[in-house]
Amino acid sequence: MSAVNELILSKAGSNVDLIPEIARHLISSGGKRLRPMLTLAMAELCGYRGDGHVGLAASVEFMHTATLLHDDVVDESDMRRGKLAARKLWGNQASVLVGDYLLGQAFKMMVDVGSLDALRILSGASAVIAEGEVMQLGAAQDIGTTEARYMDVIEAKTAALFAAAAEVGPVIAEADASVRASARNYGMALGLAFQLVDDVLDYGGSASDLGKDTGDDLREGKITLPVILAIQRGQEADRAFWRRCLEERDVRDGDLEQAVALMRSTDALADTVTRARDFGAEALAALDGVPAGAHRDALAEAVDFCIARIS
Amino acid sequence: MSAVNELILSKAGSNVDLIPEIARHLISSGGKRLRPMLTLAMAELCGYRGDGHVGLAASVEFMHTATLLHDDVVDESDMRRGKLAARKLWGNQASVLVGDYLLGQAFKMMVDVGSLDALRILSGASAVIAEGEVMQLGAAQDIGTTEARYMDVIEAKTAALFAAAAEVGPVIAEADASVRASARNYGMALGLAFQLVDDVLDYGGSASDLGKDTGDDLREGKITLPVILAIQRGQEADRAFWRRCLEERDVRDGDLEQAVALMRSTDALADTVTRARDFGAEALAALDGVPAGAHRDALAEAVDFCIARIS
Repeated sequence: MSAVNELILSKAGSNVDLIPEIARHLISSGGKRLRPMLTLAMAELCGYRGDGHVGLAASVEFMHTATLLHDDVVDESDMRRGKLAARKLWGNQASVLVGDYLLGQAFKMMVDVGSLDALRILSGASAVIAEGEVMQLGAAQDIGTTEARYMDVIEAKTAALFAAAAEVGPVIAEADASVRASARNYGMALGLAFQLVDDVLDYGGSASDLGKDTGDDLREGKITLPVILAIQRGQEADRAFWRRCLEERDVRDGDLEQAVALMRSTDALADTVTRARDFGAEALAALDGVPAGAHRDALAEAVDFCIARIS
Repeated sequence: MSAVNELILSKAGSNVDLIPEIARHLISSGGKRLRPMLTLAMAELCGYRGDGHVGLAASVEFMHTATLLHDDVVDESDMRRGKLAARKLWGNQASVLVGDYLLGQAFKMMVDVGSLDALRILSGASAVIAEGEVMQLGAAQDIGTTEARYMDVIEAKTAALFAAAAEVGPVIAEADASVRASARNYGMALGLAFQLVDDVLDYGGSASDLGKDTGDDLREGKITLPVILAIQRGQEADRAFWRRCLEERDVRDGDLEQAVALMRSTDALADTVTRARDFGAEALAALDGVPAGAHRDALAEAVDFCIARIS
């Protein structure tokens, strides 16, 4: 992982001053490096002995960082990982362009690794992620968004990169197709669990602890699974509240507490946690299809770590 | 070229409605398809007989379209090719995300073609273009921008894609390194000529015909070569005018005419045209290094066409 970190820092460099400044702001701001870890562990458990997995892992992290930069612009977010969002510090323009730069660097690193199969998987993920974000844009401000549609959105915008990150490990190790499929299924299920946990955390977690870093989704008009379940199971009378907050984007003092109260009375948060746990179990089951050992244990722990954030 | 257009339209598709809508708005809005033409002609004059050049040409056009979508957001442009800019019709958010989608699709198409060398060239161009745009952002609102710095900006943001588009032709045809270098030099010089012509056209061309589609650069605070030459050769007293327009972004009625008058009195427009012609001549000279024939003639005509826009 330290080789990945070194590569990330060196490839975030540029003679154009603004680029390393912005890239490092994000890269060093305590991201969990969960996605590149999947690539490394999956490659190593498949017996890979080269260093191409380091380049692929760094590419995955760059793709993720580029997405964060663009997301913050699209969502008009003020904060990211407890710090001011890059767009608040350097503007939307720089965030868009530095995101593009990181994406270009990601593809360059993949090309350096030289696996066309890995390139196919990661470039496919790149298009799918953007598709998911556009879908989410369409679903935003529509409180009629269905659960099925929401699952399509998060599969594309979040889980596809987890799946690709995991799959390229066995690919570069030239493992069997069945191992590759198991790795992909693991990544996909973990990504879905991860996103659902995030959705719950934004409303204070299952304990509804409304500390800092909560309420962003409500303020940004994002329709997530807890909201969908609360609307679906709630009273007709509550729809006016959701419509005002999420469609009219008029969020007032006390609205976050009101949203959480509606979610609790409908078990929306608890049931989202249950689904996250189900996807976590699916991820663990998929691990049966990859070779056993310390790296597989680490991948199992990643699932527990992800779920444990809400416990 | 019709195969390229078909591929472009099919790969701009998506189940997410907004994507084809926005992509087609741009793709069908009368772009000159100059860049993909370079790829096709260069591949064919090198004797290439497969269909990989079609995929590469379509990738190049997608990279270009993605850049236009993001540029309009960054420049806060209202118009593009005489139509409302996508961001005015669908918003900045969709423009950022659909740009990302097209970039992902571009890489997918390149991977389908399967040439790692072509992938290296085009992914490199993708990072360089973004770097150029960030450089331009830094130079914007700085009337002290030097000519050398400006040439670095346009080499990166415009000419690098022309160079890459031309170079991947010989690359996929497996032509000699010298042919490949000539193709690249041709593209680079053509791209520089093209951008300088654009810069002049934005101030009405060498005839200073201030019809529609002029004045965007002044309104957007862009420091281009005509501006740099006018400031460098002008009176100290005129700097206050340029500072107000370009640094303070306070452009009033009559300012465009005033800018053009200052450019004419300093020969800034005429000398930018001269440099464009010089780069055009350099592009023609580079063509000596690629095999002769109808396709080479077409590439020579592309240079004339590009320069003729200001004649």
